[in-house]
Amino acid sequence: TNGVLLSIDDYHQVAKKKLPKMVYDYYRSGADDEITLNENENAYRRIKLKPSVFVDVSIHETDENSCKTHVLHGKSEISFPVIIAPTAMQRMATDLGEKATARAAVRANTIMILSTLATTKLEDVAIEHKKALTEHPGSISQLWYQLYILKDREFTKNLVQRAEQSGYKAIVVTVDAPRLGNREADRRNTFRLPENMQMENLLDPLKEVKNTDTKVSALNDYFVRQVDASLTWKDITWLRSITKLPIIVKGIIKKEDALLAIRANVDGIVVSNHGARQLDTTISTIESLPEIVQAVRSIDKNIEIYIDGGIRRGTDVLKALAFGANAVFVGRPIIWGLTVNGEEGVLNVLNILKKEFKLAMMLCGCPTLDDVNESILAINNKHTISKL
Amino acid sequence: TNGVLLSIDDYHQVAKKKLPKMVYDYYRSGADDEITLNENENAYRRIKLKPSVFVDVSIHETDENSCKTHVLHGKSEISFPVIIAPTAMQRMATDLGEKATARAAVRANTIMILSTLATTKLEDVAIEHKKALTEHPGSISQLWYQLYILKDREFTKNLVQRAEQSGYKAIVVTVDAPRLGNREADRRNTFRLPENMQMENLLDPLKEVKNTDTKVSALNDYFVRQVDASLTWKDITWLRSITKLPIIVKGIIKKEDALLAIRANVDGIVVSNHGARQLDTTISTIESLPEIVQAVRSIDKNIEIYIDGGIRRGTDVLKALAFGANAVFVGRPIIWGLTVNGEEGVLNVLNILKKEFKLAMMLCGCPTLDDVNESILAINNKHTISKL
Amino acid sequence: TNGVLLSIDDYHQVAKKKLPKMVYDYYRSGADDEITLNENENAYRRIKLKPSVFVDVSIHETDENSCKTHVLHGKSEISFPVIIAPTAMQRMATDLGEKATARAAVRANTIMILSTLATTKLEDVAIEHKKALTEHPGSISQLWYQLYILKDREFTKNLVQRAEQSGYKAIVVTVDAPRLGNREADRRNTFRLPENMQMENLLDPLKEVKNTDTKVSALNDYFVRQVDASLTWKDITWLRSITKLPIIVKGIIKKEDALLAIRANVDGIVVSNHGARQLDTTISTIESLPEIVQAVRSIDKNIEIYIDGGIRRGTDVLKALAFGANAVFVGRPIIWGLTVNGEEGVLNVLNILKKEFKLAMMLCGCPTLDDVNESILAINNKHTISKL
Amino acid sequence: TNGVLLSIDDYHQVAKKKLPKMVYDYYRSGADDEITLNENENAYRRIKLKPSVFVDVSIHETDENSCKTHVLHGKSEISFPVIIAPTAMQRMATDLGEKATARAAVRANTIMILSTLATTKLEDVAIEHKKALTEHPGSISQLWYQLYILKDREFTKNLVQRAEQSGYKAIVVTVDAPRLGNREADRRNTFRLPENMQMENLLDPLKEVKNTDTKVSALNDYFVRQVDASLTWKDITWLRSITKLPIIVKGIIKKEDALLAIRANVDGIVVSNHGARQLDTTISTIESLPEIVQAVRSIDKNIEIYIDGGIRRGTDVLKALAFGANAVFVGRPIIWGLTVNGEEGVLNVLNILKKEFKLAMMLCGCPTLDDVNESILAINNKHTISKL
Ligand SMILES: Cc1cc2nc3c(=O)[nH]c(=O)nc-3n(C[C@H](O)[C@H](O)[C@H](O)COP(=O)(O)O)c2cc1C
Ligand SMILES: Cc1cc2nc3c(=O)[nH]c(=O)nc-3n(C[C@H](O)[C@H](O)[C@H](O)COP(=O)(O)O)c2cc1C
Ligand SMILES: Cc1cc2nc3c(=O)[nH]c(=O)nc-3n(C[C@H](O)[C@H](O)[C@H](O)COP(=O)(O)O)c2cc1C
Ligand SMILES: Cc1cc2nc3c(=O)[nH]c(=O)nc-3n(C[C@H](O)[C@H](O)[C@H](O)COP(=O)(O)O)c2cc1C
Repeated sequence: TNGVLLSIDDYHQVAKKKLPKMVYDYYRSGADDEITLNENENAYRRIKLKPSVFVDVSIHETDENSCKTHVLHGKSEISFPVIIAPTAMQRMATDLGEKATARAAVRANTIMILSTLATTKLEDVAIEHKKALTEHPGSISQLWYQLYILKDREFTKNLVQRAEQSGYKAIVVTVDAPRLGNREADRRNTFRLPENMQMENLLDPLKEVKNTDTKVSALNDYFVRQVDASLTWKDITWLRSITKLPIIVKGIIKKEDALLAIRANVDGIVVSNHGARQLDTTISTIESLPEIVQAVRSIDKNIEIYIDGGIRRGTDVLKALAFGANAVFVGRPIIWGLTVNGEEGVLNVLNILKKEFKLAMMLCGCPTLDDVNESILAINNKHTISKL
Repeated sequence: TNGVLLSIDDYHQVAKKKLPKMVYDYYRSGADDEITLNENENAYRRIKLKPSVFVDVSIHETDENSCKTHVLHGKSEISFPVIIAPTAMQRMATDLGEKATARAAVRANTIMILSTLATTKLEDVAIEHKKALTEHPGSISQLWYQLYILKDREFTKNLVQRAEQSGYKAIVVTVDAPRLGNREADRRNTFRLPENMQMENLLDPLKEVKNTDTKVSALNDYFVRQVDASLTWKDITWLRSITKLPIIVKGIIKKEDALLAIRANVDGIVVSNHGARQLDTTISTIESLPEIVQAVRSIDKNIEIYIDGGIRRGTDVLKALAFGANAVFVGRPIIWGLTVNGEEGVLNVLNILKKEFKLAMMLCGCPTLDDVNESILAINNKHTISKL
Repeated sequence: TNGVLLSIDDYHQVAKKKLPKMVYDYYRSGADDEITLNENENAYRRIKLKPSVFVDVSIHETDENSCKTHVLHGKSEISFPVIIAPTAMQRMATDLGEKATARAAVRANTIMILSTLATTKLEDVAIEHKKALTEHPGSISQLWYQLYILKDREFTKNLVQRAEQSGYKAIVVTVDAPRLGNREADRRNTFRLPENMQMENLLDPLKEVKNTDTKVSALNDYFVRQVDASLTWKDITWLRSITKLPIIVKGIIKKEDALLAIRANVDGIVVSNHGARQLDTTISTIESLPEIVQAVRSIDKNIEIYIDGGIRRGTDVLKALAFGANAVFVGRPIIWGLTVNGEEGVLNVLNILKKEFKLAMMLCGCPTLDDVNESILAINNKHTISKL
Repeated sequence: TNGVLLSIDDYHQVAKKKLPKMVYDYYRSGADDEITLNENENAYRRIKLKPSVFVDVSIHETDENSCKTHVLHGKSEISFPVIIAPTAMQRMATDLGEKATARAAVRANTIMILSTLATTKLEDVAIEHKKALTEHPGSISQLWYQLYILKDREFTKNLVQRAEQSGYKAIVVTVDAPRLGNREADRRNTFRLPENMQMENLLDPLKEVKNTDTKVSALNDYFVRQVDASLTWKDITWLRSITKLPIIVKGIIKKEDALLAIRANVDGIVVSNHGARQLDTTISTIESLPEIVQAVRSIDKNIEIYIDGGIRRGTDVLKALAFGANAVFVGRPIIWGLTVNGEEGVLNVLNILKKEFKLAMMLCGCPTLDDVNESILAINNKHTISKL
């Protein structure tokens, strides 16, 4: 690559070389045979576009904000519809870890979602974020907080309230992880945090995550002991009772659950299979999006629909939006940026996606985000399909 | 793999290294070009899941018996819906052979089906099984007996009655092998039993299975001489007349035959293509299951439907059950366990499947086996399919 | 392979090693990018079987003639529904060439179709065939004659009459070769017959087939000069006027042409794409068979339908018959047998196919050829297909 | 290949060896992950033919003009339905560049479309073309001019008028390139024109195309500065106002745009995705052709429909015509011919395509271009498809 990193994959390849195997495996891998890991990406490759031409798309060059969008019903604004997904333990990628990501979020003018399993205190990330906002006064970046509801509800309540007090603007509850998926790479590596790090926001974190048994990753061990496998939609009511923040539910893959989410009155859902790290052979997220959008939009125009998993190109973002998503989250791409070059790396990764996304909009004949809809997708193409 | 065996495939790889080529080939191979051998596994990989989230699945951690199920209409109970398929000549894998498997069945609390072509006397397997039951008093394991109906009906009758007297609880008649399939690997190896073993339950076993012609496996030779190619459903009537045991018919692949099985009043059917060892390009078992379940269930709620072939992961078990199977059989996985570590190996393999299956249930939002149904499968997904 | 040849592919591999590249390439290759060459075989692999079980199939062991069938409305009989396709220049494979094939046809009790482009005089092949029939009095083998209608109609008439007088029992007119396909391998090799051979039945054969231009195979050169590209169905009328022999038309791929063949009153058609040697990306023969059978059988019960292209296994023969073919032709498999071991090799290849075909019938639950029909195919499987 | 080049791919392989990497990459590559680049070719491979047989196709040997066709409603005539697509900077392939291509167009009796980004003055190409026409008096070759509408409309107007005055017979407006696609190969190579060349017809060409920034190809740089991203169908009206030449719009991929083109009263459209160089994962051109043809022909019988992208074989041309195209354009094949052997190379490439196309017509049973229609395609093959 001649030292010049042009694509998300370039960042991935350099990160792969840079990271210790145990860390790289943790970041990269998926559950079981990684069928869904591959499918998340491949499904996007199978979806074909039908660009419109001869449309005035010059706005994307004259207006810096041509891709700006609102989320959370206008309470939040991002420079383009890509949000930083919550990913655990970012200090294994680079020393500044979650702080570096937060700074990049500010500079890219987007939202960072902090993981419950962060290796930095949530208050420290918030302070760093505020500092960066001061340095970059134009930015309207926000922090959101990803929550695993733990068996210990008092502790969980405390986490949520600490987040609220520190200025996080939404709670993203992950609902697809009553237990950790079977990540064999981590088990082979007896994955554990390096000596000098811990999950800073958790109970007795050091003890919990140090594990020397073979065949068990320390993270898995932690989940079994702390994470609550008995959660139901009623717990959303409880969550509402302890926080005023908007609530987004992350990990929906079927329309029936999306409808339950609406009934539970959440503010948004994330169509996600947890980056294929939970249950292998789960359907790819982009393939499950259409029926969710259809079911949801037929009864609710307001709830927001995000999607993550496998997004590596601007065209992937475009496709997700064309199928009806409000915005997308990216997980691993951020990790690779962080690994390669810390804050700058994350910013670069986001800029690559933004540039590719803008170009995709131009070449598809979409001056504004409102023009991005199913008409640019080669679907329902009965004539072609029956013919070929 | 660092010496730690995490998956069925890990066991397969180690077994491959340990076994003489002739034996490994016999255990692994399929008919002709092994298209169905691959399809049996690949068909599972193509089936996608749609997990439900936010369901209380903690029972799988609090209740050891969360996956326990009944078979044979409650006459039998197993700790999870996986049964040991009948596989021939297990002493080639490990010295204790069928006895070791029987002991592992007791410890795993499941059913072992002994093959007619066992390298251990059926009575000896029964004695070992009883001994193990005494050592593990909590276990409710059973033995079933797999039957090839031989030309010599008196001898066949004798086999069945020996099995009944020794405490085997059901007869599993294999109906897909009027002749042995074209297993070229065995023919190239002039497959024969090692000197110190024989098919202990058969007529003049030593003479029959020793064969020095090229291009013919000894087993094939045996089949031509002894196995009856003229069987029809009327022979089930005969079988009923000589035994009180429940009768299960193994090797059904089309719904018409499933209906004939109902008419013949059998207690259960096994949707099986004999592990792809008989007729190559036969449809994969999981792809033939749905139409069989539909046809059978529309006229009979009681007959049990099992399936085998290609099950290597907990998600495979889950899918088979979601399509309507009562339980699954596994063949080669047991052989790999037996090869790697005898009784312990088989137990480990079963424990891996159980653990994976439980996790799959948790991650799919299924607290009980009754929750495992088509709603977790990404099928009839008209919207998505027409779109992509 | 340990010196033991078990399958058609074994023969292919040994032949590949034995033949000079120019000859091997001529025999093996197809037109352009060989997409149809691969498809002819792969289409069979995609078609899945649904065996019936518990059917008395012992007849295949007790009755040598269990697969015997009639062709040409009973005028001809073959020991199993596989016929030797016409292939040119067999003396390049083995010195005795077409004579060896004819002898093997006698011993295998099937029909050999001699190519117009044979390297042996058609009268000599007929004499050898008769000699072999005397040596094997039980055989009912026949010779048929494959015809290219040449520009020189007098010469063509002469060929047909020589064939009729020599005892050939049918004329197989090849209609898919107004010109030779673009066989790049032959062009790269400047393919030509070895010095000591010629196309013995053709005009000025030596001169015509010797060609030293680059980029042109001698055969191609011959075609341009001699073969008539202006043929139409009217030429069948002409052919009828010069011979009493049954006429079979070889090279039909679309149903419209099959209907024209019926109107032209021919006795049989061969669904063929010339072994993928003519027009690349032509649909595979087995995929075009169903609509041809349907169209033809709805108006004519008598015309016979053969098929060739890509048949390498007994299950392929079974599938072709299940879709409605009366018998199949095999081309390259015969060439590989001839190359490896002359007459014996061809006999072996036919015996392998017969043995595999019989076993496939047994394992599919088909006691007689009449039982081989669409019910053994996994088609129209709406339920399964919509589900998976 | 023994020094003999038989196919377009042979030319590609030799060209690959001959060209500097930067130039080869520029010519070969596509946008992003080159999914559409592969699809453009693979889609043709998936389309299967159903040849008619026993049709008199001898005309293709007796009549040199059997494939001659008219374009632009008879105003133009070409020896076979293949036209030279506009490709930029041909002097990187061979010193004489666009002049050599023009000469080959004359000798092959077809149309050459000159790119706006040519490395030769459009007047010089026209002079060379006229010279060649004098040398080959039988030829009826034409030049057409491909236009990028630049921000500087005066300059653009000047270009069009220079073309008209020099004898170019049509304007081909490229509408799929408001910006250059993300061609990573060019970015990695910091693609720029060699020192001794420039885009001869453009403003301040030398300065514009010399760029030493990393991560940006000079061409990309040029596009951002000069090409107008605000074009709409109204600009066709403007174009009409400045020239009398027929106007063809290049880069249509969806039927809605084809209908807009009709409304804008253009003379022809080119179904094109710019050789997969603009937006990756755009649907392949041949897969988008059927619905465009259907939509267009239901309201307009006259507008001409061309297609380009991925055509490498005579059968590809045949398929495009069978789906309703009037003629096809070829881009890269011409470049490979030019690289390997200049004028002769281009002529050879065109002759290969012509020979293959004629042979495909013969083998498909099409005496005239009017016989080339959907009846030769294996589509709408409901019976087969539902069965397999
Ligand atoms: C290394 C890693 C750690 C993750 N940690 C969390 C987490 O702590 N909480 C959570 O809800 N999701 C977590 N995820 C899932 C991401 O939020 C997101 O769903 C996923 O990464 C999206 O797929 P992508 O990586 O293909 O973009 C993690 C993903 C990765 C790759
Ligand atoms: C080595 C081996 C021996 C087998 N022997 C028998 C047998 O004696 N009787 C029988 O009914 N099935 C036999 N089978 C088939 C199994 O019962 C079962 O149908 C098959 O193994 C299931 O497929 P799987 O191996 O992919 O799990 C055998 C299978 C294998 C692999
Ligand atoms: C080497 C070779 C030569 C052939 N020569 C002729 C021929 O002279 N006349 C003819 O009608 N078909 C000829 N064919 C086509 C065969 O008759 C038959 O259609 C084809 O081989 C069937 O495909 P298969 O080789 O896959 O079995 C030839 C095929 C091959 C492979
Ligand atoms: C090297 C190269 C340069 C091209 N330059 C132009 C151009 O200047 N203007 C244009 O309209 N199309 C241009 N194209 C697109 C071609 O006109 C055409 O659409 C495409 O090459 C067709 O695909 P093919 O190369 O697979 O035949 C270019 C294509 C290539 C490969």
